Amino acid sequence: MFKRVLVANRGEIALRIIRACRELGVESVAVYSEADVDSMHVQLADEAVCIGKAASKDSYLKADRIIAAAEITESEAIHPGYGFLSENARFAEICSSCNFQFIGPSAQVISTMGDKATARATAVANGVPVTPGSEILADEDEGLAEAKRIGFPVMIKATAGGGGRGMRPCFKEEDFRSLYKAASNEAIACFGNGDCYLEKLVLNPHHIEFQIIADRHGNFIQLGERDCSMQRRNQKIIEECPSPLLTPELRKRMGEASVNLIKAIGYENAGTIEYLVDDKAENFYFMEMNTRIQVEHPVTEEVMGCELIKEQIRIAAGEPLSQHVLKSQPRGHSIECRINAEDPYNNFTPSPGRIDLWYAPGGKGVRVDTHVYSGYTVPPHYDSMIAKLIVTAATREIAISRMKRALGEFMIQGIKTTIPFQQEIIDHPDFKSGNYDIGWVSRFLEERQGS
Amino acid sequence: MFKRVLVANRGEIALRIIRACRELGVESVAVYSEADVDSMHVQLADEAVCIGKAASKDSYLKADRIIAAAEITESEAIHPGYGFLSENARFAEICSSCNFQFIGPSAQVISTMGDKATARATAVANGVPVTPGSEILADEDEGLAEAKRIGFPVMIKATAGGGGRGMRPCFKEEDFRSLYKAASNEAIACFGNGDCYLEKLVLNPHHIEFQIIADRHGNFIQLGERDCSMQRRNQKIIEECPSPLLTPELRKRMGEASVNLIKAIGYENAGTIEYLVDDKAENFYFMEMNTRIQVEHPVTEEVMGCELIKEQIRIAAGEPLSQHVLKSQPRGHSIECRINAEDPYNNFTPSPGRIDLWYAPGGKGVRVDTHVYSGYTVPPHYDSMIAKLIVTAATREIAISRMKRALGEFMIQGIKTTIPFQQEIIDHPDFKSGNYDIGWVSRFLEERQGS
Repeated sequence: MFKRVLVANRGEIALRIIRACRELGVESVAVYSEADVDSMHVQLADEAVCIGKAASKDSYLKADRIIAAAEITESEAIHPGYGFLSENARFAEICSSCNFQFIGPSAQVISTMGDKATARATAVANGVPVTPGSEILADEDEGLAEAKRIGFPVMIKATAGGGGRGMRPCFKEEDFRSLYKAASNEAIACFGNGDCYLEKLVLNPHHIEFQIIADRHGNFIQLGERDCSMQRRNQKIIEECPSPLLTPELRKRMGEASVNLIKAIGYENAGTIEYLVDDKAENFYFMEMNTRIQVEHPVTEEVMGCELIKEQIRIAAGEPLSQHVLKSQPRGHSIECRINAEDPYNNFTPSPGRIDLWYAPGGKGVRVDTHVYSGYTVPPHYDSMIAKLIVTAATREIAISRMKRALGEFMIQGIKTTIPFQQEIIDHPDFKSGNYDIGWVSRFLEERQGS
Repeated sequence: MFKRVLVANRGEIALRIIRACRELGVESVAVYSEADVDSMHVQLADEAVCIGKAASKDSYLKADRIIAAAEITESEAIHPGYGFLSENARFAEICSSCNFQFIGPSAQVISTMGDKATARATAVANGVPVTPGSEILADEDEGLAEAKRIGFPVMIKATAGGGGRGMRPCFKEEDFRSLYKAASNEAIACFGNGDCYLEKLVLNPHHIEFQIIADRHGNFIQLGERDCSMQRRNQKIIEECPSPLLTPELRKRMGEASVNLIKAIGYENAGTIEYLVDDKAENFYFMEMNTRIQVEHPVTEEVMGCELIKEQIRIAAGEPLSQHVLKSQPRGHSIECRINAEDPYNNFTPSPGRIDLWYAPGGKGVRVDTHVYSGYTVPPHYDSMIAKLIVTAATREIAISRMKRALGEFMIQGIKTTIPFQQEIIDHPDFKSGNYDIGWVSRFLEERQGS
């Protein structure tokens, strides 16, 4: 095992990693920007090094400064957390070449799975379904033939399109030609290029991801799914494990596909494979792979009774996965709310500033991961997430009542947070019935605005 | 289910019950003394009623005021927590006669199991072992015969004895006559009565208790044991589940004996049966039954994945035990430290006063049950426990590393706490190896004082 690990991140995930190190008997080194000097991750690490000014590009994204900090503190390994340099293949490479163990997969695997086209091709090559699509179409005749082959509904997409322009969903054959022309013409008008291709349109899709983990000793396993369909502008708001949508049969198929894929690419360490699942829970389609720990990893930890950060460190140190992880079975239900310093009733505008009072909920089944505390000032420079509230209970119904209770106990003064918005969601009949897809939040917000 | 429950207690357990009510959709009424107006249990309840002055006898022990508070708030049931009136059969009776559902067993069962002699006789009658003993002995000849029957070592006890006088442990036959004379003569000299009897002497005993729970629908179950051997002057300091001492075979026997006993007495609601277990984990002896929830119930909740307070309320409302409780299986290991406002380096003198700073640990596997917060003043009138820190992990070894990490994260300013003492214990090789009995703390403190 390593003697000392440098944590190349900030906020709650830095604290999470420092805690895991402490429990493993490994010393931890925090790095921090000038804006983060008061963060709890700095206070609780064994050592802390300032690596630059507030802006991420001058600190948390500065590979050379992080490497220098690792050198002067005699760290042996670097944990990148999520975001920042965590999926930067070049950084993983630099770590290796400087003889620091990067806690994550190899630079080559990061690179392969980081390129969307290559990742998609890799999935296809290993029998993992992707959303069916066409090559660039010669004309509308070829388009219609391809649409029939793929099956309706399809999305007609201009290669040059963007921001919603040059895109048309098509639900039936008789509409195809006119919609194709509309998409192509719009793309010519906007981008000077009318080339189009097709993609299967997944209706009311659900975002469901599988946690995978693999060591150097031949263990390639999946630890179940997380349902992350509760999103606003592609930002997850609430995540849960298990998914209220999946059937045991689909869960099994998706789990097997996930394990096959990581075996095929010789994956090492923790990662997540993101899928779209249709509303009937019949089909799943590979979206992308994240070659790092996810924000929402705690819901998996709670249900599976394991600790992903520790396993990441163990694997990077050459140890096998813990026995209890290899044998772990799901128990109960876990839900996470991301608490952001934003004003949910003013278009989610960031709300940095001093937290005059911070009282977090406690008691049975409540876990709070946060770097903030009473008197802490949320800096305006970074992601607005200030805490994760994770609740776990024997059933989904009890977990929901617990989340409601725990959100209600929070007392925060000085800044605005997304808690009232999350309370609305948790209380909504659609959430209670598990009846939500990735479009739910935008429909909910539109309706609320309209009413 | 009840519409409203009155919580006849204070501190962390009052808050624990209020949280359970909230999650059940039941309104909660706090009662409080004038000294407890700022306690978090008062702030988080739906309603709160002041019932008197600081002294317990003028508030939390005043049955009439509690009943009056239940009447004016239109509560339907009363949860007594632990301590105070929780094992007062008369209070349970008053509740019934005033048409409030007492959340616990019947007054009659409380009365039966509250009398040590009756409880012991009940155990014997139902095949639960008690420490073997003799009647009052006629003379030393009869004493020797009885000692041989019981088996050495035995404790020779004067019926009039007390404060350690008139007691002699006897390890072998050849010493019996002289020790008997010594005990009897000492009792004559001190108390004017030399009558003696014998009790089996359990060497280096361990305090191991079984959580039981039963409803009105024929379900009588046990939810495993808690090891509470880490005690100072009969006050538990650290508790864990499962016990590092028990063998699977002994655990099974003790569990079966516990279920037999509660079936025989028609027990209803949650309770705990306390046993002494010898150092070799071969024999167990009934000590007493607590007809209420225990302070240390969370370690059972964590390992068994259940919620005892909610089940107590459900049972009192006539509902059956939850399905997930009936099917629950143990997972992992849980340890609780009782954080007391005491100075461990000044003979555990109480240390009430204002808590200037309260930062509690968080993250994976850490549960904190507490009514205190930054700025709260610990009143001098009550038990000195201000928080319970419960950690849970896949294995005992990881749980210990987590407890060490979590205790180390606590930042408390303004009062002294027992945390440094608990850190010493957690770090001790004897605790790590699970090699401790109920005499361990006093031996440890003596050695430390001597060194």
